[in-house]
Amino acid sequence: MAMLLHPDRLFPADPDTRSLARRLFAGIEHLAIISPHGHTEPRWWGENPAFPNPAELFVTPDHYVVRMLVSRGVPFEALGIGAGAQADPRAIWRRFAENYHVFRGTPSRLWIDHALSQVFGLEERLDADNADRHYDAIAERLADPAYRPRALYERFGIEVIATTDGALDDLAWHAAVQASGWTGRVVPTYRPDSVVDPDFEGFRANVERLGELAGCDIGHWQGYLEAHRRRRAFFRSMGATATDHGHPTPRTADLPEAQIAALYQRVLAGRAEGEDADLFRAQMLTEMARMSAEDGLVMQLHSGSFRNHSAGVFAAYGRDRGFDIPQPVSFTAALKPLLDAVGMDPRLRLILFTLDESVYARELAPLAGAYPGLLLGPPWWFHDSFEGISRYRRRVTETAGFLNTAGFNDDTRALCSIPARHDVSRRVDSAFLAELVTSHRLDEDEAHEIARLLATDLARSAYRL
Amino acid sequence: MAMLLHPDRLFPADPDTRSLARRLFAGIEHLAIISPHGHTEPRWWGENPAFPNPAELFVTPDHYVVRMLVSRGVPFEALGIGAGAQADPRAIWRRFAENYHVFRGTPSRLWIDHALSQVFGLEERLDADNADRHYDAIAERLADPAYRPRALYERFGIEVIATTDGALDDLAWHAAVQASGWTGRVVPTYRPDSVVDPDFEGFRANVERLGELAGCDIGHWQGYLEAHRRRRAFFRSMGATATDHGHPTPRTADLPEAQIAALYQRVLAGRAEGEDADLFRAQMLTEMARMSAEDGLVMQLHSGSFRNHSAGVFAAYGRDRGFDIPQPVSFTAALKPLLDAVGMDPRLRLILFTLDESVYARELAPLAGAYPGLLLGPPWWFHDSFEGISRYRRRVTETAGFLNTAGFNDDTRALCSIPARHDVSRRVDSAFLAELVTSHRLDEDEAHEIARLLATDLARSAYRL
Amino acid sequence: MAMLLHPDRLFPADPDTRSLARRLFAGIEHLAIISPHGHTEPRWWGENPAFPNPAELFVTPDHYVVRMLVSRGVPFEALGIGAGAQADPRAIWRRFAENYHVFRGTPSRLWIDHALSQVFGLEERLDADNADRHYDAIAERLADPAYRPRALYERFGIEVIATTDGALDDLAWHAAVQASGWTGRVVPTYRPDSVVDPDFEGFRANVERLGELAGCDIGHWQGYLEAHRRRRAFFRSMGATATDHGHPTPRTADLPEAQIAALYQRVLAGRAEGEDADLFRAQMLTEMARMSAEDGLVMQLHSGSFRNHSAGVFAAYGRDRGFDIPQPVSFTAALKPLLDAVGMDPRLRLILFTLDESVYARELAPLAGAYPGLLLGPPWWFHDSFEGISRYRRRVTETAGFLNTAGFNDDTRALCSIPARHDVSRRVDSAFLAELVTSHRLDEDEAHEIARLLATDLARSAYRL
Repeated sequence: MAMLLHPDRLFPADPDTRSLARRLFAGIEHLAIISPHGHTEPRWWGENPAFPNPAELFVTPDHYVVRMLVSRGVPFEALGIGAGAQADPRAIWRRFAENYHVFRGTPSRLWIDHALSQVFGLEERLDADNADRHYDAIAERLADPAYRPRALYERFGIEVIATTDGALDDLAWHAAVQASGWTGRVVPTYRPDSVVDPDFEGFRANVERLGELAGCDIGHWQGYLEAHRRRRAFFRSMGATATDHGHPTPRTADLPEAQIAALYQRVLAGRAEGEDADLFRAQMLTEMARMSAEDGLVMQLHSGSFRNHSAGVFAAYGRDRGFDIPQPVSFTAALKPLLDAVGMDPRLRLILFTLDESVYARELAPLAGAYPGLLLGPPWWFHDSFEGISRYRRRVTETAGFLNTAGFNDDTRALCSIPARHDVSRRVDSAFLAELVTSHRLDEDEAHEIARLLATDLARSAYRL
Repeated sequence: MAMLLHPDRLFPADPDTRSLARRLFAGIEHLAIISPHGHTEPRWWGENPAFPNPAELFVTPDHYVVRMLVSRGVPFEALGIGAGAQADPRAIWRRFAENYHVFRGTPSRLWIDHALSQVFGLEERLDADNADRHYDAIAERLADPAYRPRALYERFGIEVIATTDGALDDLAWHAAVQASGWTGRVVPTYRPDSVVDPDFEGFRANVERLGELAGCDIGHWQGYLEAHRRRRAFFRSMGATATDHGHPTPRTADLPEAQIAALYQRVLAGRAEGEDADLFRAQMLTEMARMSAEDGLVMQLHSGSFRNHSAGVFAAYGRDRGFDIPQPVSFTAALKPLLDAVGMDPRLRLILFTLDESVYARELAPLAGAYPGLLLGPPWWFHDSFEGISRYRRRVTETAGFLNTAGFNDDTRALCSIPARHDVSRRVDSAFLAELVTSHRLDEDEAHEIARLLATDLARSAYRL
Repeated sequence: MAMLLHPDRLFPADPDTRSLARRLFAGIEHLAIISPHGHTEPRWWGENPAFPNPAELFVTPDHYVVRMLVSRGVPFEALGIGAGAQADPRAIWRRFAENYHVFRGTPSRLWIDHALSQVFGLEERLDADNADRHYDAIAERLADPAYRPRALYERFGIEVIATTDGALDDLAWHAAVQASGWTGRVVPTYRPDSVVDPDFEGFRANVERLGELAGCDIGHWQGYLEAHRRRRAFFRSMGATATDHGHPTPRTADLPEAQIAALYQRVLAGRAEGEDADLFRAQMLTEMARMSAEDGLVMQLHSGSFRNHSAGVFAAYGRDRGFDIPQPVSFTAALKPLLDAVGMDPRLRLILFTLDESVYARELAPLAGAYPGLLLGPPWWFHDSFEGISRYRRRVTETAGFLNTAGFNDDTRALCSIPARHDVSRRVDSAFLAELVTSHRLDEDEAHEIARLLATDLARSAYRL
């Protein structure tokens, strides 16, 4: 049996290129982890609890794992999800282990192998036979304080980690971290979808709560905008350096004041018609960009996912079950109103993400290679993978260069996968840079410099961390 | 001169990766051929005639060959097509041979070289000089019973082959095969386009004939559906395990009963207006999916081709002349009605094909990696090629894994190209798997297992053969 | 420090494949440069002036360079553009040199390094430290007659170069070349955008001027068409072999005479409404194709760029500042009216270009691999690069072959980059062909033949030069 993690994994086959990739990777392998966008639970950092068991660490909450098992015929219930679901974590783990072969060729396989080996010291490929032994070994370690979140943060070499937090969140867990004396740096991110999207459940009540929290009259457009400004200021006071926006499309708008004020009244009153909701979301992206130029919060736009695609799965099992499916997007016309408003403002920083790779070379690289306010975020979601990162670099670099990209995001709620994801990213970038040197598109000294930028420095500067 | 077929063709250049690809390929090279979707003529299997001459075997009926020669200025007539066309097969063959260089870099070149070498024992690259010698050698062999369809079936190691048959077909040639005592397995496939698509020539008459054949009253919606059920049952009784649907787009719908019944009346009466025809096709995909869940026939959807693009070519030379041009498609929103209706039903199996590669990673892999009823068909048509299969594996595997794909289809009417196409597919998959092992994304024992799945087992299980 | 240009640059890493690429490249490296489409200034060839200074040669007019520096926060003014801009070329050059690292990984870097080394004999990587030395060296050479346009034409081994010229241009500089006795071949190209696009500034006046120049009554549709015919004849008399059409989309139309005559009256009168302007452009593509079939001028279509995307940049700094951003396009339905009109006419030659790579394999290769009148232009603009050319060959060749492509275009206004661009193209094609041979998809003798076609012969024949 092979080692679970080969030291040359993800490096090119050609011997000279592989040696070069090794040298480049050696220079960045042990750099700190910068995690400027992700979904770890603030409670972990504030309370530092033990993880309950291997199934709740690796299976049930991981939408990559759940969707793949479901696609192969495993019921949600067998994974601990839904009414009457399997409650025994060992049974869930066994089901996972006996189906582990379905992950062959996927990034989940690389991430989980990495965690099993590097976090839990397990060097045998997971399967039905060793399922119980692996379960016991992991469970034993989870009881050890060295496997609690803050200890893992330190062991992983994390320098800073951002969470993603609703605009109405009180950030109490962030306050708890700050009050605790622990030296880890955990920063919140302002995510206002619930108070910006008229289609969001409870939009009206959410906006009212926003007004209360901010001490603003949200009954009119300017009061609503002011409420955002104050909440953003509160987030900044708690350490935030960024906002995040999850929109179905990257459409933006910049309407005349009177028109947007009237539109606001309609959406607030629940009288949105036709494309009102979409237009309001579009306008709010431009407003958020203006506020970012003013208060310095870096703006992130994640668009193009058709959330909760299966009506049945959503009804029975809720959100984030792996049934979010990408759709085609186009940024060129969609972003023009926002960019005409603030795209040339040297204070703006807007980081764009996509699930539609056809826009990398066609639209995103040309946009980021022109507008000073734009950066390209790293490959998102399904594309955070060996092939995905390779395609991204090949399609983006020639037009946008390296410096118009924003470094790496692990973007995960799976704590143990964080070092694995940065490891994959650093290896694939080392492999890409090695190929540039071998084909004499770059000198080796330049490749070392860029490797370091991609691993940590660009993320630090892009997010103003 | 090089050999016509090099034993290492399509393998990676790196020596270690190439050795590994060789080992993987050695394990699957001689496995049986499973051909679950294709367009060979049922008559060949029922009657077992000799092929008339080299031109009618290799040139005139092959739309890949014809379109390429036409694109370089060769008139259809010179290839034996159209009024007053060249009638001498040797003259057609010479024209083909003297233009054989235009196929450099195309899969047609690989397929034809393979057939010339492996089927006809010709090892010289075809050109104007050897055209007559090749013609004579092939013609001589075609007169030999060892070159009739059933002998080739056996020589090629085919285990089962599916034909594609209109819903109104009497399957007489399939009956003839079954009555003949020959041990080859030839199964029909239910293709109802002519009775499902209101834009099809003679739609009304076709539906009436469907009713007669099924003994159902197609004057109302439920009778029409029942006629489909009965014809499907007939096809199943003749060995069919699948249906196939050729639609301009993957749009689906799931209308209320009253609305669809009224729509049916309009299309039946030839009163379809606006998007009626499109909506009817969309609804019928959902109905067919429901029937598949009930009767177990695997459903295939081939969408996205703009058929008969040139009005002039269609008028003068008819269908299937190589003038079918792909269009952009999107599956995410289009399939939702069907998937909401039956997508989580464990009995459904729907295999999706595309000519728009931008949907592989963006839509198809996420859909197949979530819904239990979906599988991805292999690269279709123009993409059944070295680069096409490579792109498919690279874009699909990380999100859908290997097991959510349906193995290989040769999808051809060119009998002699069948072993060539499976050979290409097995080689490219071996090369891809070798790269996964060399880059330590997979262990070698796993790669051998997957190679076998991709070569035969997935096709068998996907199509319930 | 590495050499600025490594002799093996852009070749594959695998040693055997690299050797083969070297052999292929050796056979084409020194062939003449055919430049059938580009934007050099006719004045250069007619007047043969000295280039004023390094900044005006390498920085200010190069939209690739300007946009990238602007994207990294350098103001346009610092690059000599806009009101109150930096006027000292040495200061502009310094700003460029100190930011030269932002071009790492881009084709601009390869082109500029090539020019510095091969044209100016500078072998040190440009940076802030050597900025002044490089400036002085270049400036000194620019004063030398050997660095004037005609001398460079000869030194670069150019056989023929096409300029791009408005339909109203008097082609005086071309006449000056012809009268001069100089043996260089500089041919104009008919670019009628300003008299074909109703949205063009001054459309009405432009059309009136067209009528005057042609001696036609443009008050009616047939007179307007005749004016085009006469101007095309004038361009042909001055050496033109091609036309070029820059359209937002590839939409075409072929309306009945009465309808188009009425549409012409509306656009001429400035009464275009709704989609009138778009429809007129669409119709004019078909008219131009008809005229091409008649007069033999090769037609080029460059579509899909959203020109002057930033309203602010356009207002302050004008056109061609690097703010032209691609949009999604689709050709299949868009070209049908034109192709139904003249697509099977053996006299037509239409060369298609795209900025949307997703259409290569999906639409353009199938179209060019069927219609005799269509050829695919080389990778355009952002895609004229190592990765861009590689993607193009991999996506196009299997369906269209090599002979349905139109060879290479440098498409540049940057004179010193011409040999660099042909060098990159020839190297990448050699690398691609070497891989075809190493993977036994092609024999070596065939690869040598194709390399020559791609380097020069296809461009000559495609453009009837």
